[in-house]
Amino acid sequence: MEWLNTYAFPRETAHLDSDAATKEYTKLCNRLVAHGTTTVLIFGTIYKEACQRLALCLQAQGLRGFVGKVCMDRQSPDGYSEATSDSLADTEAFIKWVQQLHDNKIHAVVTPRFVPTCTPELLQGLGQLAAHFDTPIQSHISESFDEVEYSSALHPDNTGGDTALFDRAGLLRQRAVMAHGTCLTDPELKVLGQRGTALAHCPLSNFFFGDRVLHVRHAMRLGVKIGLGTDVAGGYSPSMLNAMRSCVIASRALCMSHYATASPHSQAPAPPQTEPTPNRQNLTGVATVASAEPGNSFCIPAPESRKEIQAANLLDWKGAFWLATVGGAQALGLEKTCGTLEVGKAFDALRVDTRHAAAFDVFPADTPMDIFQKFVNLGDDRNIKAVWVGGKLVHHKAS
Amino acid sequence: MEWLNTYAFPRETAHLDSDAATKEYTKLCNRLVAHGTTTVLIFGTIYKEACQRLALCLQAQGLRGFVGKVCMDRQSPDGYSEATSDSLADTEAFIKWVQQLHDNKIHAVVTPRFVPTCTPELLQGLGQLAAHFDTPIQSHISESFDEVEYSSALHPDNTGGDTALFDRAGLLRQRAVMAHGTCLTDPELKVLGQRGTALAHCPLSNFFFGDRVLHVRHAMRLGVKIGLGTDVAGGYSPSMLNAMRSCVIASRALCMSHYATASPHSQAPAPPQTEPTPNRQNLTGVATVASAEPGNSFCIPAPESRKEIQAANLLDWKGAFWLATVGGAQALGLEKTCGTLEVGKAFDALRVDTRHAAAFDVFPADTPMDIFQKFVNLGDDRNIKAVWVGGKLVHHKAS
Repeated sequence: MEWLNTYAFPRETAHLDSDAATKEYTKLCNRLVAHGTTTVLIFGTIYKEACQRLALCLQAQGLRGFVGKVCMDRQSPDGYSEATSDSLADTEAFIKWVQQLHDNKIHAVVTPRFVPTCTPELLQGLGQLAAHFDTPIQSHISESFDEVEYSSALHPDNTGGDTALFDRAGLLRQRAVMAHGTCLTDPELKVLGQRGTALAHCPLSNFFFGDRVLHVRHAMRLGVKIGLGTDVAGGYSPSMLNAMRSCVIASRALCMSHYATASPHSQAPAPPQTEPTPNRQNLTGVATVASAEPGNSFCIPAPESRKEIQAANLLDWKGAFWLATVGGAQALGLEKTCGTLEVGKAFDALRVDTRHAAAFDVFPADTPMDIFQKFVNLGDDRNIKAVWVGGKLVHHKAS
Repeated sequence: MEWLNTYAFPRETAHLDSDAATKEYTKLCNRLVAHGTTTVLIFGTIYKEACQRLALCLQAQGLRGFVGKVCMDRQSPDGYSEATSDSLADTEAFIKWVQQLHDNKIHAVVTPRFVPTCTPELLQGLGQLAAHFDTPIQSHISESFDEVEYSSALHPDNTGGDTALFDRAGLLRQRAVMAHGTCLTDPELKVLGQRGTALAHCPLSNFFFGDRVLHVRHAMRLGVKIGLGTDVAGGYSPSMLNAMRSCVIASRALCMSHYATASPHSQAPAPPQTEPTPNRQNLTGVATVASAEPGNSFCIPAPESRKEIQAANLLDWKGAFWLATVGGAQALGLEKTCGTLEVGKAFDALRVDTRHAAAFDVFPADTPMDIFQKFVNLGDDRNIKAVWVGGKLVHHKAS
C-alpha cells in the first residue's frame, strides 16, 4: 500500500486531465509496440474518460488491446476513490462505449483493482456486469505477504483467501486474468484451474513487491493457465524480452528457496536431523540443518534433490518465450486467434534483425537457435524492425 | 564442468589463432566501452600470445585493463591443458611482457582458472610469482555446489575448502579477486577479509551456474571487499548496468530463500513447531512448518522476521551502483586512483544523455535522482555518449 500511496495513486489521479492522460498513454503505446508487444491487457485509472483515451491510443497504434477501468470503493485515498454505484455505472458505460467502437481488437475488461480496495458489493456487481456483457476480467490476486495479511484482516470470516472472495462474486471464469498469485495455496490454484481463470506471471514485479515468485510450473500442473506480463510500473521494464529474462531468473530463485529446505548432503557434518515432513513444494523430504557452530558449514542439498527441484521448477528461455506468446494467448482466450504462427490465425508477428543488431554480436558459428537465444537474452527494441498485428503493419523502422 | 567442456574450452581453444583472438577481443572491447565500462579484470586463455593480443586490444581502446593468462594443468580436456612448468613459465613471460609495455593502465594478473583444474604445485608456483612480481591475482572460488563437491573430491584431506587451498599457496592477499564465492562458509569469508582478498559478485552468472547467490552484505560484514562483475559468458550480458539490476534481484532472491526458513506467521494454522535452532544466516530462529495436508496453507514469515531479513540482505539500486564503482575500485586496490569523482583521482567518467535517450522516457516531474534511477534500471549503451578513462576520451557518440 505504501507504494500505491506514494507512486501509483498520485500518478493515476493526474489522469483526471484526459489530455494529460493521452500524452502519457501515447508514449506508453509507442514504447510497447517498439518493444514488440502486439497484445496488451492493461489497467487504466478509475476515470472512464482516461480509459477511453487509453483505448483510443491503443487503437491508433493498431495494437490488440484489453482495457480496464479500475474500480475501487474503499481503502482508497481521499480524492481517488469511487462510490460503489458510480464505479459500477462507469464500468457499464465504459463497456458500452468500447462496444460501439466495433473494433474487434479493442475490448473492455471488468477490473476490480484488488480485494483490499473493493467492497463485497462492488465485487458482486462487477461479477454480474462481466457475466451480462461477457467481458474478460482482470485483477490482482494474493500478490504478497502484505496483501494477503491486509485482505485477511478486512475479511476475518473468509478462510479461502482472495480466491474465495473473487469466486463468490463470479469473478473467476474463462478470460479472467489475475496478476501475480504468488501467495496462492494449492486449493486456491485448483479453483482457478477449474474455473478457467489464468494468472499473469510478472516476475520482475514479484521480486520487488511479491516477497515471493510465482511457482509457475507447479501452478500449471494444477491446471492453471499462465501468461507472462511486465506489470510495467510494478516492474520497471515495459519489455517482454526483459520479462522473459526475469522469468528464467525467477525460476532459478525459486529453486534456491527450495534448496534452503531440501534434504542435505555431505558438506554439513553430522547435522541434527529432524524427521522428514511433507511440505507444500512436493519435495520428497525436508530437514532442518544446523551445525553446532553457525556458519562453520553450509548445507548442500543432495544431488538427487537438486535434480528433482530443477526438474519441477526451472524454466529456460524457451519456456519463458512460450509463456510470452502461447501462454498469454491462452490466458486471454485468444489461442485460436494468435499466439503462434499458423494458417488460419491472425498475423501477429515481428521482423527481428540480428545482422544489424546494436545489442549483441552474431558470430559465424552461431546456429539459428543460438541467434534466437541471443535475441531473447540480449536483444532489445533496436532489433525489432517491424511489428504486425492482425496482418496490419503497426510499427516499422529503417534497417 | 559440462558448460566448460561444451562452450568455454572449445571457444578458448580457437584463440590458439591469435589473429582470430584479436578479432573477437576487439569486438569485446568495443562492447565493453560502449556499455560504459572503464576498468576490466579479465581472464584470457591459456595461450600467452592471445593474452598479449587481449592486452593490446584493451590498450588500443584506452581501457584500464587487468589481464590474466589462464593456468590449468589437470582435469582439463586433451588439447587444452598445460604442463605445470609451461604454465608457470608462460605466466612469468606474460608478466614481463606486460611490464615492458610501461602502460600504467595495463596490468598482468596471476590467474589459476579454479581449484579443480590446478595441481597444488601449480597453485604454489603461481603464489610465488604473484609475490615476486607483486601482481594482482584472480580466480574462481566456491562457485557452486558442483564445484565445491568436485574440489572436495580432488582434495579429500582438505577441510578448509577452496579458501584453505588458495591460502596455503599464497594466493589470498591484497589485490586478489576471487569470482563468485557463493558457497563460502563464514570462517572462509573471514580469512578472505583478513587477507584483504576481494570477491567479484557476478549475480547473473550465479543464477545460472552458482545454484546460490552471494550473500553480499553478510560477506561485507565479515570484512570482505566486494566489487560487481558481469562474468560475461557465465552471465550473458556484458553490461554493468545489467549486472546492477541482477545484483538487486539477487538480493531479493536471497531474502526469499531466508523467508523459506524463517519463523512463521499466522497464515499457517497451528503448524507443528520444532525448536528454533541457529542457522548460518544469523536469523533469530528457524522453524519447520507443515500443515497436516500439504498445500492447504503456506508459510508467511512474521513481519518482524521479514524486516530483519531485508535489513540484513537487501541491496537497492544505489547499493548496486556502489558495488559497480567504489567496490570494484577497492577490490583492485584502485580506491585512491578511481571509483569516485574526486580531486586528485583519475577522471574515469561517463557522459550520460537522458534527454535523447532511446531506452526510457523522462517526465517533467522526475527529479535528478529519479532520472539517475531510470538510467540504472532501464538505460543502455544508447544513453552513454562519451567515456573517459584517466582523463582520456576513449569512446564518443554523436547525440
